[in-house]
Amino acid sequence: MDNDTAKHLADLRRSIDNVDAALVHMLAERFRFTQQVGRLKAQAGLPVSDKHRESEQIARLRQLAEEANLDPAFAEEFLNFIVAEVIRHHEKLASDS
Amino acid sequence: MDNDTAKHLADLRRSIDNVDAALVHMLAERFRFTQQVGRLKAQAGLPVSDKHRESEQIARLRQLAEEANLDPAFAEEFLNFIVAEVIRHHEKLASDS
Repeated sequence: MDNDTAKHLADLRRSIDNVDAALVHMLAERFRFTQQVGRLKAQAGLPVSDKHRESEQIARLRQLAEEANLDPAFAEEFLNFIVAEVIRHHEKLASDS
Repeated sequence: MDNDTAKHLADLRRSIDNVDAALVHMLAERFRFTQQVGRLKAQAGLPVSDKHRESEQIARLRQLAEEANLDPAFAEEFLNFIVAEVIRHHEKLASDS
């Protein structure tokens, strides 16, 4: 790898690292909100999973992904990945309460 | 579900929707950077995957996750999930070039 390539690669990786830090902090904030949702659902005796809400979220995220030139199928997998973690949290809350 | 609970839930969901829109746009930006990395690697004949870089990223993200009170194991799974998609893109680039 020549010097220019190495510099260019290091530069891109610094940007990726910045984006990743932002992603981690957005995810942390998202879980703070979903933990509030979990507590609310546990108090009200609501089911941890809400298929209607999830299908609305998927449709909305696919649309946003298309606008941002991101693969909508990937955006949907991404949401499913996060929602699976959220449901694990909610189930733990429901069983603890 | 009483009115207050319904309002509180709707309010939290609006915040989650905002965070998700931010996540989708950060992810789109991240893939723009990794696509540049992919092109650079394909031009320089570098391998699509870089285990040393990946282990550095994992260690850093776990640290950031802890600081943000996010489960470090989840942060690592999250990075693996994204990197798997990035490697699919890079392999496609390498095979197209």
